[in-house]
Amino acid sequence: MTSPQRIWTAALAIIGDEILSGRTQDRNIAQIAAWLNVQGIRLKEVRVVADDEAAIVEAVNVLRARNDYLFTTGGIGPTHDDITVDAIAVALGVPVVVHPRARAVLEDYYAERGGLTEARLRMARVPEGADLIENRMSGAPGIRHGNIFIMAGVPHITAGMLESLTGTLEGGLPLLSRQIGCWVAESEVADLLRATEKAHDGCQIGSYPFFREGRVGANFVVRSTDQAALDACVAALRDALEAIGRPVTDGGI
Amino acid sequence: MTSPQRIWTAALAIIGDEILSGRTQDRNIAQIAAWLNVQGIRLKEVRVVADDEAAIVEAVNVLRARNDYLFTTGGIGPTHDDITVDAIAVALGVPVVVHPRARAVLEDYYAERGGLTEARLRMARVPEGADLIENRMSGAPGIRHGNIFIMAGVPHITAGMLESLTGTLEGGLPLLSRQIGCWVAESEVADLLRATEKAHDGCQIGSYPFFREGRVGANFVVRSTDQAALDACVAALRDALEAIGRPVTDGGI
Repeated sequence: MTSPQRIWTAALAIIGDEILSGRTQDRNIAQIAAWLNVQGIRLKEVRVVADDEAAIVEAVNVLRARNDYLFTTGGIGPTHDDITVDAIAVALGVPVVVHPRARAVLEDYYAERGGLTEARLRMARVPEGADLIENRMSGAPGIRHGNIFIMAGVPHITAGMLESLTGTLEGGLPLLSRQIGCWVAESEVADLLRATEKAHDGCQIGSYPFFREGRVGANFVVRSTDQAALDACVAALRDALEAIGRPVTDGGI
Repeated sequence: MTSPQRIWTAALAIIGDEILSGRTQDRNIAQIAAWLNVQGIRLKEVRVVADDEAAIVEAVNVLRARNDYLFTTGGIGPTHDDITVDAIAVALGVPVVVHPRARAVLEDYYAERGGLTEARLRMARVPEGADLIENRMSGAPGIRHGNIFIMAGVPHITAGMLESLTGTLEGGLPLLSRQIGCWVAESEVADLLRATEKAHDGCQIGSYPFFREGRVGANFVVRSTDQAALDACVAALRDALEAIGRPVTDGGI
């Protein structure tokens, strides 16, 4: 059941020294944000925290309390720096247990890959009371505990986990967006943007300037959960830009 | 003056609906993290918040209090959704004023670009008591207020601002890192990694698995502020991997 009035929100906690050290370029924010939009859930806030129990516990407890859903990525592998499950168990005040189905999945996966060692068995550990999220890409499953979704850090594995969750989370109306582009300095049309947004309830206009081919331009993204309102706002914005002699390109430049 | 014992930390607040909507792939975390490492400052935590005053104020006040430095990116342009300066002024409890030098920079920049309109003048507004950060790429400068550095959202403009700050911030010893790669499942060497890290004080080992050319492998990044300790840890890790018949590639695979 979807309820159009209510806005469903999610937070994302990215767990990993590799992001904070600059070694790895995060790709999960954009990927999870785009997936959430389609589920009718708004990504409200993101935190990146170190592989540090206290930091993870703080982020998890704040974010899960004030959002409908909390996603985490990273720190669920077999090595010593993978402490996400233990830290989330601490945050929840529950023990860590081996999930029998996760164990079976891993036994099967490693049957022809050298067997299920103690390190590999770490990936079957979950906070007590958890369900599994299917991993279509590699052995170790993701974990769901209440409104917390514990996912892999490697983006294509995360993608597979998101796919298996598609359509299973209660959300509101999907957030729709349309983009138009224009060869104009955003500072030249700031008042026009503000006025257009104000005249169209339930629409937000984002302005994304660029400098290309020696000229300045901007793309404008209009977002709304209401298709008619969105279309009306885009049409008004196009008219306003063209009225000052600035042709508009559908879909952006 | 650098003090080797003390660890200098920074936080980053990324301000922008475009990141939370999934429209824009963030590149500032990795860029700022790498730059901070060279300054001897550790990126400790990151938050991504919406273009929403209350969310910005909360993040800014928590992060600036518990870190030596706070960087922000995004929301300093001329349009209606650029509310970073106003929100940070609220967080600091100071008024917003027009900075005379920022005004002069913008007057100069827009002299042959249509003049300094009211919207463009917004980019000269700063929380009272602020200094400017030179912007070598486009007109509007960044802003420094105490331990807060307010930077652009567009990565190449941020890069120019970082460049002009290089060497001006007090930090500790730079964080050094070396990477080696190996065709091995990380789950096979988890114990070996843990033992090697434990035997080398002041070194952290990160493990980054991959699946390529139909085979599993992993890169291992050793980090330390002490070059000799780092080299010893990398040598020990290499020996341990080769002792189990896994050749190691310098610099990673």
